[in-house]
Amino acid sequence: MISKSQISFVKSLHNKKYREEHGLFIVEGVKMVNELLASSFIIQSIFTTENYLKNLTNINPKAKKIDVNLVTEPELQKISTLQTPNEVIALAQIPFDFRKNHFDIAQIKDKWTIMLDDVQDPGNLGTIIRIADWFGIKTLITSLNSVEAYNPKVVQSTMGSIFRVEVLRIDIEQILQAAKVPVYGALLEGDNLYKAEFSKPGVILMGNESKGISDRIRKYITAPLSIPSFGQAESLNVGIATAIFCSEMRRRQ
Amino acid sequence: MISKSQISFVKSLHNKKYREEHGLFIVEGVKMVNELLASSFIIQSIFTTENYLKNLTNINPKAKKIDVNLVTEPELQKISTLQTPNEVIALAQIPFDFRKNHFDIAQIKDKWTIMLDDVQDPGNLGTIIRIADWFGIKTLITSLNSVEAYNPKVVQSTMGSIFRVEVLRIDIEQILQAAKVPVYGALLEGDNLYKAEFSKPGVILMGNESKGISDRIRKYITAPLSIPSFGQAESLNVGIATAIFCSEMRRRQ
Repeated sequence: MISKSQISFVKSLHNKKYREEHGLFIVEGVKMVNELLASSFIIQSIFTTENYLKNLTNINPKAKKIDVNLVTEPELQKISTLQTPNEVIALAQIPFDFRKNHFDIAQIKDKWTIMLDDVQDPGNLGTIIRIADWFGIKTLITSLNSVEAYNPKVVQSTMGSIFRVEVLRIDIEQILQAAKVPVYGALLEGDNLYKAEFSKPGVILMGNESKGISDRIRKYITAPLSIPSFGQAESLNVGIATAIFCSEMRRRQ
Repeated sequence: MISKSQISFVKSLHNKKYREEHGLFIVEGVKMVNELLASSFIIQSIFTTENYLKNLTNINPKAKKIDVNLVTEPELQKISTLQTPNEVIALAQIPFDFRKNHFDIAQIKDKWTIMLDDVQDPGNLGTIIRIADWFGIKTLITSLNSVEAYNPKVVQSTMGSIFRVEVLRIDIEQILQAAKVPVYGALLEGDNLYKAEFSKPGVILMGNESKGISDRIRKYITAPLSIPSFGQAESLNVGIATAIFCSEMRRRQ
């Protein structure tokens, strides 16, 4: 059973404004919620049908102080962000550092980091978080004007990787100014990715879907890199380009 | 002005059944239609507002026997496959070889080809066609059970590459049986992509989004390859994996 006020509360979290106000985001589906339960994220509540409750592993509501609500399928439908609602919806806390735009330069020193300048498509960001997880990149930094990482479409498309990769949202210009680290920027007119120097840990910087890396940020690139083209396509999708950069970086190690 | 029967004809092409019956598919947007006009595809008709007609380059309706219909924006809205309809819609012929499931073994001998076993998501197929175009792979073979390449969502997500890469739809088992070519198959338990032999031109074979390459097809793989993982993500998206394979193939040349 779910109350009217609970319905309107969960539905409010479909919107960025209320996610930021309450510091909570939505996770849907047995597989995703099981990954959430296995993570260090703090879960506030779970809405599920009786049938699916038994598919949740690692759930110990008392120990974890999770408010578990048994609901009907039509009730789930009302609060879901999906067209075909899943069997379970969880509300979890957005990490403090993301909410507060916190960042410590030490997080990117001598480490590989992905940094996104104004990536707008939720599916692209979700895919990039999954790529970071695959290639063992622990920190992903999104600019203030990028799509918000806790948007339900981003969350679902990470396939659980959002619980393992630290995603931050900060003024990337400020960081690039302060941090003296290599910045490998994806530019169509950059040096050949396969041949250029690309071994010292640094920032893999990707730009907006249509405009690329902005002029404001471009000047911080220490190594402009480009994926050689062998055909006539004008560009590659930003998720695809990120994957090729990360793969090439790992290959060389 | 567009007639009721024209509206229902174009709308019928939103569905695979009628695309196959009429051998026509839909292309939307000034950029896409300009790429179509620059290609060897045969265009049957164009619906556009007067305003946007002048943005179409290479258009010579008489020489190309294109039926150009000036319409209003609300009329375009009625026939569009998009939520925000573009300024122009073209109907073009689906290539004969695709429609008839034609194929000649010579098309894959001593060449790089991408082959897809049961890829279902239109966005993934569109992205893979764009990747093929970027990396200069001229032929992409889809299995009979893959999503149809002339689905409007596939077409739009290729960003024009569908006019430059030959896409075929055939019984891939039959081809793999007959063609004695290297088959590089993406398998989670394959050999390290970065270290394995991967130089002789052959087929880059990718599988279904959740099930991978089917057992029926798997036995034709001559070189099982895997992208090494450095983190905890269970898998990579099929478009991402295809891109990394194609990039690694080109890097070695």
